[in-house]
Amino acid sequence: MSVYVTGTGTSFFGKQPDISPAELAWAAIGEALADLGTEGGSRPAFDAAFVGSVFGEPGVAMRALQGYALTGVPIITVENACASGTSALHEAATAIRQGRYQQVLVLGLEQMSTLFKGPIVPQQTDTEGRTGLAMPSLYAMEASRWLHEGRVTQEQLASVSVKNHRHALYNERAQFRGDYTIEQVLGSAMISDPLTLLQCSPISDGAAALVLSASSSSSRDVELLASAQQAGGPWDHRSADVWGYQLISDTARAAMELAALGPDEVDLAEVHDAFTIGELTTTEALGLAPQGMAGHYAESGRTALGGQLPVNPSGGLLSRGHPLGATGVAQVVEIVWQLRGEAGGRQVDGAEVGLVETMGGGVSGVDGNACVVALFRRGGRNGL
Amino acid sequence: MSVYVTGTGTSFFGKQPDISPAELAWAAIGEALADLGTEGGSRPAFDAAFVGSVFGEPGVAMRALQGYALTGVPIITVENACASGTSALHEAATAIRQGRYQQVLVLGLEQMSTLFKGPIVPQQTDTEGRTGLAMPSLYAMEASRWLHEGRVTQEQLASVSVKNHRHALYNERAQFRGDYTIEQVLGSAMISDPLTLLQCSPISDGAAALVLSASSSSSRDVELLASAQQAGGPWDHRSADVWGYQLISDTARAAMELAALGPDEVDLAEVHDAFTIGELTTTEALGLAPQGMAGHYAESGRTALGGQLPVNPSGGLLSRGHPLGATGVAQVVEIVWQLRGEAGGRQVDGAEVGLVETMGGGVSGVDGNACVVALFRRGGRNGL
Repeated sequence: MSVYVTGTGTSFFGKQPDISPAELAWAAIGEALADLGTEGGSRPAFDAAFVGSVFGEPGVAMRALQGYALTGVPIITVENACASGTSALHEAATAIRQGRYQQVLVLGLEQMSTLFKGPIVPQQTDTEGRTGLAMPSLYAMEASRWLHEGRVTQEQLASVSVKNHRHALYNERAQFRGDYTIEQVLGSAMISDPLTLLQCSPISDGAAALVLSASSSSSRDVELLASAQQAGGPWDHRSADVWGYQLISDTARAAMELAALGPDEVDLAEVHDAFTIGELTTTEALGLAPQGMAGHYAESGRTALGGQLPVNPSGGLLSRGHPLGATGVAQVVEIVWQLRGEAGGRQVDGAEVGLVETMGGGVSGVDGNACVVALFRRGGRNGL
Repeated sequence: MSVYVTGTGTSFFGKQPDISPAELAWAAIGEALADLGTEGGSRPAFDAAFVGSVFGEPGVAMRALQGYALTGVPIITVENACASGTSALHEAATAIRQGRYQQVLVLGLEQMSTLFKGPIVPQQTDTEGRTGLAMPSLYAMEASRWLHEGRVTQEQLASVSVKNHRHALYNERAQFRGDYTIEQVLGSAMISDPLTLLQCSPISDGAAALVLSASSSSSRDVELLASAQQAGGPWDHRSADVWGYQLISDTARAAMELAALGPDEVDLAEVHDAFTIGELTTTEALGLAPQGMAGHYAESGRTALGGQLPVNPSGGLLSRGHPLGATGVAQVVEIVWQLRGEAGGRQVDGAEVGLVETMGGGVSGVDGNACVVALFRRGGRNGL
């Protein structure tokens, strides 16, 4: 059974403490329903809703959906850390592939600004909390390792931030936009050496929604070729790979096998740049850059808009923002807009195949992590 | 495809703030694996884990499972308020029925004592919070309505508490056990008129685990005949039914149709007695008692151990405790033990068919709720 994305929507991304989580969701859902072409007609029949949310209050999804009169169908709220949104996508797509449902709503939703005034603090009862390994520290260790190995330079790390903030200049819903220099990025406040402020994704509020369907009646629809979800074991500090690298590589291989295509066929990607180093390790782990080349690709413009393989044309987590449960769904929305040719000033010309990758792992991921990789192709059933 | 419960386990239930959530999970998982008969052998291969948790920290399930060396498979954490555990069961069972997985772990996990020193307080931004409709208030309105209609008496309400606390005398893992009189129940502290302290379920910590399998090789296995999950709309105060009644009735009908059996064939049930009135409305909504008779059934002993249709032989939420995400899974474990004939002093003689019902709804449920009903039959494939 094929799976198509037939409707997409997002809220604005940013700190919006005065807007309720439900209102964030309504912005995204409303746009997705309008996108589906039902604005003047009857409301589409959903068989179920799959929702990604991490810190949401119990029942937050139910309130948001029922406040929009989407009632009486199963609502499955999935929590899988930063991969919650794409885990919800994967569960929804699997349900359609197996004939369980015909049409489902996928919602990603997170309001963080009301919960966190500073960074997310890990619990003292967990390994990460006891060892001080908050997310910035963990990614900083990755960056330090690659710097030590000569696999990346400080300037290459910073170039990811420059690139993604520039991409976001064309994304009016992004939380942060700016035309920075490498020097400005490196000169911003130090968060966790070597990662400076402009290399860290922010605390964000936002929502994104997708309609997935077993059938397609429009050439604007985008096919979800395949998705894969894998979980990693506890981080093994004896591994030659940095944290998460092997997991992303394994998950990408599984998704590409299912889709029967290779990294060379990917035209653009939205990946988990929670920190600059994350985009680079991910680009290599996905096979989108040879080992040791991701930093060069970012610095040389190869992964920028206009380059051969644009990565994070939306601005990524660094610039669009990173409302945890919403992030994966927002990544998919961006890829769909790109594959439809509806991405405006940040359009990747001629994009046929797009990839989404998200990795999450508890608060800091030392105790394990999860990854989802999904592949999309332009054109619904009537469009091919 | 059939679905069998092949392994079961729980932790102790009660306030256990000094035990980590992972340790609670390990107690339940360890017992479930031993129950599966693998204690001396190799660890069983799980294709995935579905986890019910409401207030758990992001990644809590991943940490708990990977701390038990259950790594490298998808972990789907499901939040659906009080119905989270049975929603996880329903998702897991559906995955097996559709051939997606062969063997999965279902875990329910909640540590509340570290979060709540008093009752769960709804958010001020939600309808419930603004109107003061915390859970006790909402159930108190149900009770008031039925009292007004003459459908139940104060003594009948109290008899549910007496019954379930007595049942728990035979459950060494229950949080509260006691041989109370009706007068003692009615004389305990008033929480929300007419519901007194002994009519309210407590803040609890606990975990429960199940192994679900597509195949059965033991007559000890219990078949999951069917499960249904439905979501209700916003509460309509003009309805003649109390909150949740129609939803439970609809969900039960769906499950019974799938299982091709009626209420008369149910030998025992574990239902959502978060408050005494909840057990009575549920018993009627499930069709296990005629309208207006549930209170009489409780008072007369018909739904007590030794009666014709024991309800909540475990002690229910009122006495075993109510760690939200763990509750539904613990209900299933109880039914499995009963159908195997392994329930010790609280054994229901000759039990063939058991029912589990859970209803959850955000913080207070005004904005919507969810219900899961599941039906189980004694005997695995070789046992019939």
